Amino acid sequence: MTDLVTFGETMLRLSPPRGERLEGTRDLDVRAGGAESNVAVAAARLGCDATWLSKLPDSALGRRIVSELRGHGVRTDIAWDESPAARLGTYYLEYGGEPRGTDVIYDRADASVTTATPSELPGGSFEDARLFYTSGITPALSPTLTETTDALLRAATRAGATTAFDLNYRSKLWTPEEAKVGYESLLPHVDVLVAAERDAATCLERDGDAVEVANGLRRDFDFETVVLTRGENGSLAVHDGEVFEQDVYDVETRDPIGTGDAFVGGFLAKRLHGGDVAESLAYGAATASLKRTLDGDLAVVTPEEVQSVIDESAGGISR
Amino acid sequence: MTDLVTFGETMLRLSPPRGERLEGTRDLDVRAGGAESNVAVAAARLGCDATWLSKLPDSALGRRIVSELRGHGVRTDIAWDESPAARLGTYYLEYGGEPRGTDVIYDRADASVTTATPSELPGGSFEDARLFYTSGITPALSPTLTETTDALLRAATRAGATTAFDLNYRSKLWTPEEAKVGYESLLPHVDVLVAAERDAATCLERDGDAVEVANGLRRDFDFETVVLTRGENGSLAVHDGEVFEQDVYDVETRDPIGTGDAFVGGFLAKRLHGGDVAESLAYGAATASLKRTLDGDLAVVTPEEVQSVIDESAGGISR
Amino acid sequence: MTDLVTFGETMLRLSPPRGERLEGTRDLDVRAGGAESNVAVAAARLGCDATWLSKLPDSALGRRIVSELRGHGVRTDIAWDESPAARLGTYYLEYGGEPRGTDVIYDRADASVTTATPSELPGGSFEDARLFYTSGITPALSPTLTETTDALLRAATRAGATTAFDLNYRSKLWTPEEAKVGYESLLPHVDVLVAAERDAATCLERDGDAVEVANGLRRDFDFETVVLTRGENGSLAVHDGEVFEQDVYDVETRDPIGTGDAFVGGFLAKRLHGGDVAESLAYGAATASLKRTLDGDLAVVTPEEVQSVIDESAGGISR
Amino acid sequence: MTDLVTFGETMLRLSPPRGERLEGTRDLDVRAGGAESNVAVAAARLGCDATWLSKLPDSALGRRIVSELRGHGVRTDIAWDESPAARLGTYYLEYGGEPRGTDVIYDRADASVTTATPSELPGGSFEDARLFYTSGITPALSPTLTETTDALLRAATRAGATTAFDLNYRSKLWTPEEAKVGYESLLPHVDVLVAAERDAATCLERDGDAVEVANGLRRDFDFETVVLTRGENGSLAVHDGEVFEQDVYDVETRDPIGTGDAFVGGFLAKRLHGGDVAESLAYGAATASLKRTLDGDLAVVTPEEVQSVIDESAGGISR
Amino acid sequence: MTDLVTFGETMLRLSPPRGERLEGTRDLDVRAGGAESNVAVAAARLGCDATWLSKLPDSALGRRIVSELRGHGVRTDIAWDESPAARLGTYYLEYGGEPRGTDVIYDRADASVTTATPSELPGGSFEDARLFYTSGITPALSPTLTETTDALLRAATRAGATTAFDLNYRSKLWTPEEAKVGYESLLPHVDVLVAAERDAATCLERDGDAVEVANGLRRDFDFETVVLTRGENGSLAVHDGEVFEQDVYDVETRDPIGTGDAFVGGFLAKRLHGGDVAESLAYGAATASLKRTLDGDLAVVTPEEVQSVIDESAGGISR
Amino acid sequence: MTDLVTFGETMLRLSPPRGERLEGTRDLDVRAGGAESNVAVAAARLGCDATWLSKLPDSALGRRIVSELRGHGVRTDIAWDESPAARLGTYYLEYGGEPRGTDVIYDRADASVTTATPSELPGGSFEDARLFYTSGITPALSPTLTETTDALLRAATRAGATTAFDLNYRSKLWTPEEAKVGYESLLPHVDVLVAAERDAATCLERDGDAVEVANGLRRDFDFETVVLTRGENGSLAVHDGEVFEQDVYDVETRDPIGTGDAFVGGFLAKRLHGGDVAESLAYGAATASLKRTLDGDLAVVTPEEVQSVIDESAGGISR
Repeated sequence: MTDLVTFGETMLRLSPPRGERLEGTRDLDVRAGGAESNVAVAAARLGCDATWLSKLPDSALGRRIVSELRGHGVRTDIAWDESPAARLGTYYLEYGGEPRGTDVIYDRADASVTTATPSELPGGSFEDARLFYTSGITPALSPTLTETTDALLRAATRAGATTAFDLNYRSKLWTPEEAKVGYESLLPHVDVLVAAERDAATCLERDGDAVEVANGLRRDFDFETVVLTRGENGSLAVHDGEVFEQDVYDVETRDPIGTGDAFVGGFLAKRLHGGDVAESLAYGAATASLKRTLDGDLAVVTPEEVQSVIDESAGGISR
Repeated sequence: MTDLVTFGETMLRLSPPRGERLEGTRDLDVRAGGAESNVAVAAARLGCDATWLSKLPDSALGRRIVSELRGHGVRTDIAWDESPAARLGTYYLEYGGEPRGTDVIYDRADASVTTATPSELPGGSFEDARLFYTSGITPALSPTLTETTDALLRAATRAGATTAFDLNYRSKLWTPEEAKVGYESLLPHVDVLVAAERDAATCLERDGDAVEVANGLRRDFDFETVVLTRGENGSLAVHDGEVFEQDVYDVETRDPIGTGDAFVGGFLAKRLHGGDVAESLAYGAATASLKRTLDGDLAVVTPEEVQSVIDESAGGISR
Repeated sequence: MTDLVTFGETMLRLSPPRGERLEGTRDLDVRAGGAESNVAVAAARLGCDATWLSKLPDSALGRRIVSELRGHGVRTDIAWDESPAARLGTYYLEYGGEPRGTDVIYDRADASVTTATPSELPGGSFEDARLFYTSGITPALSPTLTETTDALLRAATRAGATTAFDLNYRSKLWTPEEAKVGYESLLPHVDVLVAAERDAATCLERDGDAVEVANGLRRDFDFETVVLTRGENGSLAVHDGEVFEQDVYDVETRDPIGTGDAFVGGFLAKRLHGGDVAESLAYGAATASLKRTLDGDLAVVTPEEVQSVIDESAGGISR
Repeated sequence: MTDLVTFGETMLRLSPPRGERLEGTRDLDVRAGGAESNVAVAAARLGCDATWLSKLPDSALGRRIVSELRGHGVRTDIAWDESPAARLGTYYLEYGGEPRGTDVIYDRADASVTTATPSELPGGSFEDARLFYTSGITPALSPTLTETTDALLRAATRAGATTAFDLNYRSKLWTPEEAKVGYESLLPHVDVLVAAERDAATCLERDGDAVEVANGLRRDFDFETVVLTRGENGSLAVHDGEVFEQDVYDVETRDPIGTGDAFVGGFLAKRLHGGDVAESLAYGAATASLKRTLDGDLAVVTPEEVQSVIDESAGGISR
Repeated sequence: MTDLVTFGETMLRLSPPRGERLEGTRDLDVRAGGAESNVAVAAARLGCDATWLSKLPDSALGRRIVSELRGHGVRTDIAWDESPAARLGTYYLEYGGEPRGTDVIYDRADASVTTATPSELPGGSFEDARLFYTSGITPALSPTLTETTDALLRAATRAGATTAFDLNYRSKLWTPEEAKVGYESLLPHVDVLVAAERDAATCLERDGDAVEVANGLRRDFDFETVVLTRGENGSLAVHDGEVFEQDVYDVETRDPIGTGDAFVGGFLAKRLHGGDVAESLAYGAATASLKRTLDGDLAVVTPEEVQSVIDESAGGISR
Repeated sequence: MTDLVTFGETMLRLSPPRGERLEGTRDLDVRAGGAESNVAVAAARLGCDATWLSKLPDSALGRRIVSELRGHGVRTDIAWDESPAARLGTYYLEYGGEPRGTDVIYDRADASVTTATPSELPGGSFEDARLFYTSGITPALSPTLTETTDALLRAATRAGATTAFDLNYRSKLWTPEEAKVGYESLLPHVDVLVAAERDAATCLERDGDAVEVANGLRRDFDFETVVLTRGENGSLAVHDGEVFEQDVYDVETRDPIGTGDAFVGGFLAKRLHGGDVAESLAYGAATASLKRTLDGDLAVVTPEEVQSVIDESAGGISR
């Protein structure tokens, strides 16, 4: 039985040292990063049997990604792209600091994953899968992936799995108008929606009171659950007629990238383990807070650490 | 004339880079760390003639410890353990950040020092020593060390040296009940007690008003001086019927490990140089504040720097 | 179906930078290293479904080991040791250079694995396993492991698996006389013996012509196959009445540690994939030669690379 | 047409890692740093055609400086010192942290530049130069440089260029009294004065209300423009009978060294591009704020980044 | 007067540490590398006024390239690509070691330069240029670049410049048959041909005695000079009816990438400075030998160093 | 009782990473290096009670030197130079590789030590010293040091110590003619001369057969012992009418700097421990061979390692 299958692009994440500019750097720190594998890593580390589905170049670069994910206990079902032109998406991340922003340069056009079709993905039948997750980045990457995302969501539903989706709007990939069209064709196949409040406003034109936004979305698309993430204002979920709210935990942030994915990974892991929505929001928020103390996209945490954040027993020196 | 002799365990301290987890690290920063050698280093750097007494494996690892300490001007009187099974204690330190705590994993069982007997320690006769210091970690390490600590405290007293002791309770080594028995058998041979307020409460059941705790301890064990360290609340000493209080200095903390030892080292150095209790508390607090700005257990400071913290002339850029 | 199960200790391998002494280092490179997991990694990378069986402390250090091995595609069946005293063996490796030898300091006494019993090892029933491998290091680590090794070899045989064993004599663990007793009690349960010519001489008193040594061993213990590794003189196997010889490949050595394990991993992988003994010796030798160009215990290679060494088409710049 | 020519000393800047003391470091980070080249780099990066004029040893060390500056688009007009005794000034910078100050150790005596005469400087005729800049560090370095600075200011004026000067008082080079004499002989040849409020008080005995100080200086030396920098209180300019004030931007400081030079570089770049004084103060302040987020003396920024700080649209993650 | 203009692609070169595999690395060393900029750097460092002509994304990555080249004194005439999809080619280089080859993974498809047209290249009119250089990599990158290369060779000739061309066959870009067509259309516009003996054989079907190959090429395409590089066998030139031969210098190779470009840069620099063909071959060979001792594509050398290799006075310790 | 006192300059040694040029480096490796402290470190590590006598700036840089030396067990008797202009000599070392030489740039003019007078050196009376050592670098550094060296040699002799001297000719400090004058005035106060064969030829005009050179020197200056070091040809000593020869040991050289000092340190250590001249030459040669495998000036070795080189039992992997 697989608890969770995620599908999407994972890139090589390349960062100069803090205080250094990409323009002048001699060294790049290398990590794997991608919304859906970030979610799979968080969930796997928190006790789920998680699989990441994707397409990668059959090269040392493709293996670099798989190796890092497997190290966290994620199973990887990969369509290996043996074409000489196969490429791995990369992204350059320069750490900022007030008033200099954190800068991301994507170099992901024509990555192998952008050609992935359902038939070539080895785990795409979702036998035994309880939950399928992808995000709004995936359909935005190529027309092929728009179709594949749709097909996988339908296949997952057909196979009896719950489907979860995070809007994850990326302005460097499509316009709000394009995103709206994309989202609206996929959301009918989604059971659990996660959306940044800002993305709901920008792309789905859902402004105003957060509870109303969440309830409106739930009603319009008949979601089982809607989770709104609200940055410093915490998160909020509507489910089965109830509203749940969760604050963020205090955190000294080293690296904000991957916070949302850690939240989703923690939330879904707790749900899969039988947690109710309130417990799962707390679990997601705690996972996200720990992630922010770590370099890299990944929430390299343990269930005990997440629980101790929730129990407010974390921090200090243990010796 | 030796100003100060300290006795205890020093370990190899191994830390992954900040923002990195021990679980995934490829690099470890290596340093020497141990309460009693930390005190010796602080005192030596602040002008004392300080000796650290211990037992170490006769190997590159043992020499690694001696080399770092000698670099700071500490004399090292070592019983070299030539048995093939000789081992050096190590500890792994993972830097945290709110809400993730700083994590310490000890791997110190059966270190060479745990078998140290008074007769094999080259400097254990304390001829010419003015002050002998050890902490509550030492007797907790093994039954042999419980006996050796007792014997050394008695020998120091016999040789005319003042004896100083920091409770330094470590929950990973013994229970509060065990610690209480251990402390109470040693404290009659101690002249100057340093205790974290929390340790006094946990292990010696001394709660309540800090001055009363300090006075109670002084009275019950007939200490010459009792110093209570109170974390963010500063420190307090009772001596000769007087009470002295000291605030902490403002500090941007990089690494909190070794703060207490820096305080003790600064306090004792000033006392040995003729400072009164109030001056010595300030000296200890300033030494501790500087230590917190530095990576590693050691207070790599100069007397001028400590003085300038006290004089509030520190900080800024000097050019 | 699992191709290969290996059992043994894996340690944290800590190395100062080249040209630096352990005694003075500030940095340690961290990797996982252990004969049986080295073999599992080589085999997994070369296409086998390989599982490593062991016992580890339930801590960041234990997870460090599992994470690195899983990254190479090895499945890990671990008895997690939750006792507070659980420890992970470590070894310090200082790179040498003529005339300074490569220095290894083990700190492996009382590691969790030394207490591993057959009943607590999750994969110890060998259902579906085709081949079980361990080495002479394992029984030398503790009396408990002597028994466990014996029990696992018997269980594997009972379950229908082939058993393979490398003498791997370590003079820091036992004397030749002790090793002889240990080996002779285990070898009756072994089908495929791998032995360094030197170990056969030192511990089993088998000197002289290599073919005679191999044939003598095969005859006395009724082995299916005996492989003798002969350092710069290559390797030799006797199997089914035939003798096979294999030269070493030319190599610029960066790190010799793990060469023997890479050889065994390559040899067994080829055998499991249907290679004959001659092909498998070549595969082992090529895997070993590639390993020597890489830092760390592990043969981080691909089947294509191994094949190109055999085909003598390797080297140069490919662009 | 050259927009800007600057003249002064650039040193090798050597820094231990953060949290490490110079006294114990094994590694030094290497960069180029010097007030006048810092200004040239900022201006060049912000679109000016900037030249740095100096004298350097004809060695790998001299080339190290030129190489870094040219990388930022600065033209370098160098008198290469071929004497065997030629030396490059260096400075050691140890990052501090409350209450430990940032420590600078200069080792700049007898650097090649201290012997530079106008006739040997290849770009010293200022044909085509619109603006010439140097700072009060330069005349303080040697009697020869006192004369050369004077000669260059006169030559620039003669050639029709505007002259700009930052007091940049350095207490390790001369006393306030010496500085006063030096400044007062040079300021008659200066059109645009930049002065830290503190330096004006210490060296020119101009205390009190900032506007009055600026106006007094402008009046007494007949400056075209006077800019006072006031640390956390921002900056202030008087020009053509008007007073302009500018706040500092909020910033998370990593490295304060070079802030003033970044301010000057930004201010002059905007002036050279036709900005009015108010716009130029904002440009200088924004450039300075970005510099503080970066390691090293240099303002490695782009015009777009400076503008986005002014527009308050900077910060966050862009993706 | 510009001595040398080169045109081609420069990529970000990313390398894991030696002994480490790309597949598992956490760190990448970052440098600029590209045949034509490598030649420009060598020539500029050896005293030529050299310009590199290309098209780059208008981003931190594009500036990273320009910054490194300018640091070596190369002038850069860049068409800045402001399209959001603009990308910089990258290549991953894994250092090998017998029998493991040095591995290069290119990720250069659709780089900005592949769309460069003559009209947008700022320095493409070659006013004042004495020599224009490009290599066979450039026309292989895209149909647009095939045309642009042709146009630039014609324009250079028209402007009175000598044209030089290195075959530089790359099997990952085109087949020998495609290359032959490409080369044969360009070579009529070339004055000085540099060719690896192997490339002449593979692509131009010129086998056999090296002198005959060179003379045949010279005759067929009416070259002024033909230089054949022959790996360990040195190099050979035919010019004006004469044959010149040059051995390679003994070298401890750290990094072979860029050797050929260093040779060309040295050869052309000496020719531009009036050296005869024999002197220039020696200069090229010496430059190439020094390059091999250095990490990175670039020949970071001085004229004095090149001369001392030729004079056989190099090596040893100078102090 | 002090076995050995050495006097001379120790510098900060700054090196870019291998394969990197000083001209372009961002990182410098920092170590202490100086002929006489190198000798003291080797001797101290090999069991001698060794003291290094010198003058250093009273700063973090001066303490950096003392700290490293003390870490190896050397006692340091320092005249601390508190003048603001006090400077520490530095030297930049760039590792070469055939045909690129190892490059050394000294920046040692006006270092504090150049002003050292006998009266200010705390250990300059040589009470209890058995042997005093300095080298020909010291008198070449300044006229003051010429006098001080002379005075110390006389004082040592007066105090009953043996005096040893290594010519250590440095062409960047003086000409052969100047050196000859310097040497000839000092050598009458020397008992044990160590000379590179090349220095004897260059500066003392002693060419020809090595034995004759050594005997000639011994005779002319009435030395007790003359040791000639002959590079790859090993070394040779004449003593008491006998000639002793010693080959070099095979070695993979990482860093040749400090080889001669390691030889001297090993030779003197063995002599001080009662070794005869032959044994001491072997000891010196073995110490020197180990030093060459290590980065840095210092022979970080143990007596056991030196002995195992002599016994030809070194090398290989010990486990």
